[in-house]
Amino acid sequence: MAELSSISDSNIESTLMLEPLEAAVVQAIRRHGPLSRSDLSEHLDYSRASVTGIVGRMIDAQILAEAGEGKSAGGRRPFLLDINPRLGYVVGVDIGATSVDVALADFRGGILERTGEAADVRGRPEDFLGRVAALIKELLDRRGAAVGEVVGIGVGVPGPVEFIPGVLIAPPLMPFWEGFPIKSFLRKRFPMARVAVDNDVNIMARGEHQAGAGRGLDNFLFIKIGTGIGCGIISHGEVYRGADGAAGDVGHICVDYNGPVCHCGNQGCLEIMAAGPAIAAAARARAESGESAFLAGRLAERGVLTAMDVGDAAAAGDRAALDIIRRSGRMIGGVLATLVNFYNPEAVFIGGGVAHIGNGLLSAIRQATLRRATALSTRHLRIEYSPLGEDAGVIGGIWLALEHVFTIK
Amino acid sequence: MAELSSISDSNIESTLMLEPLEAAVVQAIRRHGPLSRSDLSEHLDYSRASVTGIVGRMIDAQILAEAGEGKSAGGRRPFLLDINPRLGYVVGVDIGATSVDVALADFRGGILERTGEAADVRGRPEDFLGRVAALIKELLDRRGAAVGEVVGIGVGVPGPVEFIPGVLIAPPLMPFWEGFPIKSFLRKRFPMARVAVDNDVNIMARGEHQAGAGRGLDNFLFIKIGTGIGCGIISHGEVYRGADGAAGDVGHICVDYNGPVCHCGNQGCLEIMAAGPAIAAAARARAESGESAFLAGRLAERGVLTAMDVGDAAAAGDRAALDIIRRSGRMIGGVLATLVNFYNPEAVFIGGGVAHIGNGLLSAIRQATLRRATALSTRHLRIEYSPLGEDAGVIGGIWLALEHVFTIK
Repeated sequence: MAELSSISDSNIESTLMLEPLEAAVVQAIRRHGPLSRSDLSEHLDYSRASVTGIVGRMIDAQILAEAGEGKSAGGRRPFLLDINPRLGYVVGVDIGATSVDVALADFRGGILERTGEAADVRGRPEDFLGRVAALIKELLDRRGAAVGEVVGIGVGVPGPVEFIPGVLIAPPLMPFWEGFPIKSFLRKRFPMARVAVDNDVNIMARGEHQAGAGRGLDNFLFIKIGTGIGCGIISHGEVYRGADGAAGDVGHICVDYNGPVCHCGNQGCLEIMAAGPAIAAAARARAESGESAFLAGRLAERGVLTAMDVGDAAAAGDRAALDIIRRSGRMIGGVLATLVNFYNPEAVFIGGGVAHIGNGLLSAIRQATLRRATALSTRHLRIEYSPLGEDAGVIGGIWLALEHVFTIK
Repeated sequence: MAELSSISDSNIESTLMLEPLEAAVVQAIRRHGPLSRSDLSEHLDYSRASVTGIVGRMIDAQILAEAGEGKSAGGRRPFLLDINPRLGYVVGVDIGATSVDVALADFRGGILERTGEAADVRGRPEDFLGRVAALIKELLDRRGAAVGEVVGIGVGVPGPVEFIPGVLIAPPLMPFWEGFPIKSFLRKRFPMARVAVDNDVNIMARGEHQAGAGRGLDNFLFIKIGTGIGCGIISHGEVYRGADGAAGDVGHICVDYNGPVCHCGNQGCLEIMAAGPAIAAAARARAESGESAFLAGRLAERGVLTAMDVGDAAAAGDRAALDIIRRSGRMIGGVLATLVNFYNPEAVFIGGGVAHIGNGLLSAIRQATLRRATALSTRHLRIEYSPLGEDAGVIGGIWLALEHVFTIK
């Protein structure tokens, strides 16, 4: 038995069944961090005596653990209560178009082990998820832990998800995955785990909400800029998915009715105009036209240009590259202005592989947004890089898993 | 004492204080309509015995009343429980730019009396709200009811609202109202009433959610087309206001970077391009250019043209009028496609004074939305006229009031 998990397999399922009020205790601690019994009594609006009783039972059941002393309010310092991190393991899986990242975490969301590798999502889901299962087992081995100790797995995928069954619907990048039963595939290999699946940007928004710059915010957006452009939405403190799980599909918002044809069939979608491939195509054009010596050199050297090359060129002061980046930023900011007028978020976090090709991108996004959104909707608005960066996906997966590990009786 | 209210002033305040579980009973009935004790036990996940006890106390307190028999599930027919409509009066107030509507309702939201008149919101709020108070008193007089029997007032205003204090923030139409204490002004005149204030489109969305085509929907939009264009948002079953109460300000979304200058200072806002005044201006141009005999005739007759004249012309088959209407519809639908991609609502309801100038408007909105939104986000989407029509505002005000009449202990 591993060091972390102190409860046997046969008991874990009943331990994870909570009374409604116990669930409220868990939720309050996850939201606010470690709390004293008095804090809990206040947050839950229950008497100190009831809370003491509930908390006592939850400590006996090893759901809660004491976690040091808080500030004194006059008398002796109160003990703070936190989730017992050793109750079991959870796993966050971040599936990208060309990579997969997996992390093993404790019950407080702390990452214990992680790994990642290049992967191609266009193949068969059985092969891809078989490899995910093998990676999870590798991480368990590093800890000397058993398969049965994994009680939750949260999976992010780059496509639209019908959340309850956890299946992809008409995913453009990964057609073989349509309707594939990801949950039961993983449950067969990790029989004690509850599995939840969500769209990658929803997962990233969740990660930001639970453990990043979105902590304590009720309404914000997470924009991922990569091969495509997507948006995760937090509304009233929860991930917002919309009627068909399609909310946040901002990549196909029209920015030019006469623009190039997108893979979706429409013309001038934001994605085809401003995401990674558009930046790379613009770079090739500037290299070939002789407008950028840097990009022409890089193209001659490698035979191909990517958005990252444009970032390198911009960092070296190449004007054509700066132009390309600012043009993308302006288009993204123009759409963002519309979304800000409509949604009036507290913050917009920008992430994804292409987001970091140069500060010019963020500043162009900011300028275009502020120029075209109303004064009222932007007066407190923050537009910032995601502080979780590349970890937003696995951290979101971990929190998705944690949100589903307890059952309410 | 009026027929409706059977509880004395001194008792009403304590009657309106509910235990958390009692509040859950009220909420379940408001959401689902009259329920039997078994239904309640199922909805609230409490034992039949506990529910019977709670319901008994709530009937004694005159909060609930029996409301006929439901369907039998084998044995004798169960009694259905509903909110006691006679617990007190609530008032819905719908303040428009050029009109005010007031309705008196019972505790189930049923309208008992209503009135409305032309009014100018650009003057002093004291005068306007003094007139609102007089109209409410007129309605009470019709029922022989007293001022102290009004326990809730919900007010919709045509501008951005900071919800908790209930004050307008930088309202373009009604600058004198900025920061005016609407709540305390009305509370002085109706001392037993809780007063809540919200933006007019939020109120309309709420009305649609509680008593219109939005019943049972969790996520939908209400677009109001009048002198301006605004959008009420229901998210996770609640009105969504955003970080600064500015959510839904879709009238200032840009549809043409080179378009005419809007009163907000930007160019080519949806509102300046497609709302009532734009339609009227286009009508004058077509009348003066000789493209529309109908509109030229109407202009000669009245000296001025409104959006309603364009509606009349279209109804008479005037092609220029149909063109104007379809052009507005296309612009509104183009913006709506963006919002649908982002928000993936279950439905979009269209209302407001200009919405009904011809079916061509709704069909052009639909076509433009479906043409530019993704297939997934529109596969279940309904775009329809608001069935509440001009009543959406007062009905929403009534439900805003009802949502605030009970306090949880």
